[in-house]
Amino acid sequence: MADMIYRVNMATMSFKIEDVPADWMGLGGRGLTSVIVASEVDPECHPLGPNNKMVFAPGLLSGTSAANSGRNSLGAKSPLTGGIKESNVGGTLAGIMAKLGVKALIIEGIPEDDSTFYHIHVSKNHVKIEAVPNLVGKDNYFVLDAMEKKYNKKVAVMTIARPGEMKMLVSNISVRDPKGKLRSYGRGGLGAVMGSKKIKCITIDAENYKEVTYANSDKFKEASKIFTKSLKDNPISGEGMPAFGTNVLVNIINEAGALPSRNFRTGNSENAEKICGETMAENIKARNGSTTHGCHAGCVIQCSQTYNDKDGNYLTSGFEYEMIWAFGANLGIDNLDTIAAIDALMDDLGLDAIEMGVCLGLAVDAGILKYGDGEEAFRLIKDEVPNGTPIGRILGAGTGYLGKLYGLVRVPVVKNQSIPAYEPRAIKGQGVTFVTTPMGADHTAGYAVGSNILNVGGTVDPLKKDGQIELSRNLQIASAAIDSTGMCLFIAFSAIDDPVCLPALIDMLNARFGTTLTGDDVTNLGKMILKTERAFNIKAGLTSADDRMPEFMKYETLPPHNVTWDFTNEEIDEFWNF
Amino acid sequence: MADMIYRVNMATMSFKIEDVPADWMGLGGRGLTSVIVASEVDPECHPLGPNNKMVFAPGLLSGTSAANSGRNSLGAKSPLTGGIKESNVGGTLAGIMAKLGVKALIIEGIPEDDSTFYHIHVSKNHVKIEAVPNLVGKDNYFVLDAMEKKYNKKVAVMTIARPGEMKMLVSNISVRDPKGKLRSYGRGGLGAVMGSKKIKCITIDAENYKEVTYANSDKFKEASKIFTKSLKDNPISGEGMPAFGTNVLVNIINEAGALPSRNFRTGNSENAEKICGETMAENIKARNGSTTHGCHAGCVIQCSQTYNDKDGNYLTSGFEYEMIWAFGANLGIDNLDTIAAIDALMDDLGLDAIEMGVCLGLAVDAGILKYGDGEEAFRLIKDEVPNGTPIGRILGAGTGYLGKLYGLVRVPVVKNQSIPAYEPRAIKGQGVTFVTTPMGADHTAGYAVGSNILNVGGTVDPLKKDGQIELSRNLQIASAAIDSTGMCLFIAFSAIDDPVCLPALIDMLNARFGTTLTGDDVTNLGKMILKTERAFNIKAGLTSADDRMPEFMKYETLPPHNVTWDFTNEEIDEFWNF
Repeated sequence: MADMIYRVNMATMSFKIEDVPADWMGLGGRGLTSVIVASEVDPECHPLGPNNKMVFAPGLLSGTSAANSGRNSLGAKSPLTGGIKESNVGGTLAGIMAKLGVKALIIEGIPEDDSTFYHIHVSKNHVKIEAVPNLVGKDNYFVLDAMEKKYNKKVAVMTIARPGEMKMLVSNISVRDPKGKLRSYGRGGLGAVMGSKKIKCITIDAENYKEVTYANSDKFKEASKIFTKSLKDNPISGEGMPAFGTNVLVNIINEAGALPSRNFRTGNSENAEKICGETMAENIKARNGSTTHGCHAGCVIQCSQTYNDKDGNYLTSGFEYEMIWAFGANLGIDNLDTIAAIDALMDDLGLDAIEMGVCLGLAVDAGILKYGDGEEAFRLIKDEVPNGTPIGRILGAGTGYLGKLYGLVRVPVVKNQSIPAYEPRAIKGQGVTFVTTPMGADHTAGYAVGSNILNVGGTVDPLKKDGQIELSRNLQIASAAIDSTGMCLFIAFSAIDDPVCLPALIDMLNARFGTTLTGDDVTNLGKMILKTERAFNIKAGLTSADDRMPEFMKYETLPPHNVTWDFTNEEIDEFWNF
Repeated sequence: MADMIYRVNMATMSFKIEDVPADWMGLGGRGLTSVIVASEVDPECHPLGPNNKMVFAPGLLSGTSAANSGRNSLGAKSPLTGGIKESNVGGTLAGIMAKLGVKALIIEGIPEDDSTFYHIHVSKNHVKIEAVPNLVGKDNYFVLDAMEKKYNKKVAVMTIARPGEMKMLVSNISVRDPKGKLRSYGRGGLGAVMGSKKIKCITIDAENYKEVTYANSDKFKEASKIFTKSLKDNPISGEGMPAFGTNVLVNIINEAGALPSRNFRTGNSENAEKICGETMAENIKARNGSTTHGCHAGCVIQCSQTYNDKDGNYLTSGFEYEMIWAFGANLGIDNLDTIAAIDALMDDLGLDAIEMGVCLGLAVDAGILKYGDGEEAFRLIKDEVPNGTPIGRILGAGTGYLGKLYGLVRVPVVKNQSIPAYEPRAIKGQGVTFVTTPMGADHTAGYAVGSNILNVGGTVDPLKKDGQIELSRNLQIASAAIDSTGMCLFIAFSAIDDPVCLPALIDMLNARFGTTLTGDDVTNLGKMILKTERAFNIKAGLTSADDRMPEFMKYETLPPHNVTWDFTNEEIDEFWNF
């Protein structure tokens, strides 16, 4: 049976199941969410008003047996950036949606009765919407437990906690992973959009539905084997990441002088040794944790982990470089266990680790807390943010607005979204991605760290401007395409360095759909996505003046390399000439 | 001696006195500040960073004997709107600057030693900058007293209070008026810009300097007489405003169904009778106050007043319609004395009455206070805002950011600046001004209330779209020109309805400078100013998408007329086709 569009209207509390329009047929993941948002959402609408929509879509290869194909995309107008947003997540969701034949789930409108929150349950040919007053004011794990009891079977679960209910811009949307833990649509404040629609949770039930179909099953298997082997053979995705997780980067980026520390005042952290991936791996081994864990079925990279406390009790999982950097280097907390405890807390509360961490780093400048005070950071996140106290509201709105409220100038955001764990002055290619991607500062949009630092896909001097615009452009085009396949972005290390990887990926797409796509088609898909997103942003009121680094990085030199952000506006604006 | 440009650099703690460039020679007030800001300030700079500038300039006729010519302009990039800002003020400043021969005072840079605040004293051919640690943390009247003691003579004084020191966006810059009370550069958060430059106060001393010179003194006197008579003969500027002040508008706008009430939910206030100009005038008379008072020497309209409490003790002055509306109708306080006490408090603290009032109206939606709770409003403004508590920081950032922090959709701002006391849905011409002026929602930028409601300058149906774009455009062009002369905008009632008024104004300009300006020249000046401001804003990243009413006004009908904001984007964008 053909895939269908499931459309839910929260204003009328009704649903429709529609055929997939021809224009959307060849799209999935980010390609599909961005095209739908651009065609159906008024770019000038209030992102928390009745005219914004949420569009969920599994990738083109999600639900298949392809390795690492379990990413699901969510598109909407972001209340944080004011532009279009695509965020994607692992967990069990993408596979279940794809197997159920849901090409996209579109949620529109806002309930007239906004006195409570609702639960949306999607099953074959049906959507049920019911009020869940008993879940109001509860956090993510409570909802997960409630859904497990309710269904007594594996359903995909998406949920928001109290910050999402309160429409805070640091709130994300959490998704159940195969071990019953949480992954998240992290960035852009999409939890607030779900909160604005009064949706507490969404469950998707694919019971009794089969694997997706293949136009040519044998060819798919053949390509899939090559693809999997390529990922496993790659030194980063096959060795470094399983061993140390994404946190392998702390030492590497610190040595490069590009680990933003103390609210982006230096590129080195005195805490690096204490918080790095090697230390983390030692702790995990000594405490009977696990260094490997996949966020979705079929993951062969297994960059996630289980991190236990000193007594061997579970503390957190999905303990990532960005989280550890934000709290460890940028906020100066030198105790990995404290950071892990905050990580677990933020999972339950559904908070964007980057936005919350960078915000707290800036909060030091505002006099709200002190560097390295993990106890106070924990308290602010536990007691203030989810209770919506005044200080909780301030921190819950993210870095940009904290800066506005306190008259601060050194505010590390692009398009009002916090800059991730790579100092743009010292990894200039990554900086180009931060300023130009339609998503606001986003490290996944075009990972120039690869060739700037990791010697993946060539070598580009991270401290020089030469070649960085073109590099970032090519990476962003490729990433937009990869984000449409449902593939985890970490396949990119292999895709860039191993000549058999990308052809195998394209072969899988063709074997799944009976198409004859070439590498050029994939590139053109990536270009189309970027241009569609950029066009939405322009209509929403963003301009080249939003493709800019915070001004202080232009006149303040960053130790240890004593570099500034020295691109001219004209050089940056060249990015969009393609 | 020719007028000069005084330029102060806070980074180097130095000053220069420069000849006036030929391009600036014919400009004054808003025309001059906007041209200087556009030519010297990077539109992309952080408004609170080292690259913003403050430009003060008296009007072309300031310092002369012309009636109502005492307005002084201040230009900068606004930290509230992100665009260019011109704000003008009465008080003794414009006359003193003009007599001293200061064509413009430009302040740039930020001190390296930002541990204290500074006092800038401008006198003939000299600028003195000194640290004033004893004034840090003090409010406006304390500074006024200190300056009076220090100089023992009449100097012009500009000052910020604690909110300005803290770079809050509701903070304005206060200016001493002839009676030792305060007027203010009210809007756009310019107090925060002064705070960012660590300037506590500026004094200007014109002692022993003479009246400005005239190319033809007799012609000036002749034109001045005609002009003054015209203002006095006009029923609004000659009768209504002296009798009831600007607050005469409460009943008029309420009857028109356009008095925004309870955060712009209805066009009628149940409090109108209790807070209107007529009630205010009765109180003033019964309590030995004064209904007339000019904010600057030479004012013949005298719309200001002295408002005493029940015991006849001074309570406040400069008690304006916008203030009374914001707290009386929009926040629902029905006691004029309470509003007067808040007004006096806000004078001392240097807060923009519109931004603060509208923000508190929205704060009801955020659950921060209740409608009509004047006591709590007073407490929030007195104890929370100037102490920079978390809730004080939230309210101190103004309406737009309060909306962001609390996920609110019904947020009455344009370009992040609060909408003043005229419901755009019910006075559509005024709404066109709110969305199109480069200043952010501003009632003075093009006062379409005149012909929409007051039958001044023709009659246009306020509930219909017909003719409103052209009306607002013409008014904005005229207002930009008037704002360059140093004239109070209230001369407009006469200028529009009395055929001798505007020619007399032009005659005064020509007699002062020996020029041969025509009406067309004045119109072209207005057009040039608007286009210069718009061009700055475009470069700063504002677009047509910022020329929009809050979305809720498009789908929510306003009682009693049950009207929406029904202009299409294309209709609004037509505004700039001139």
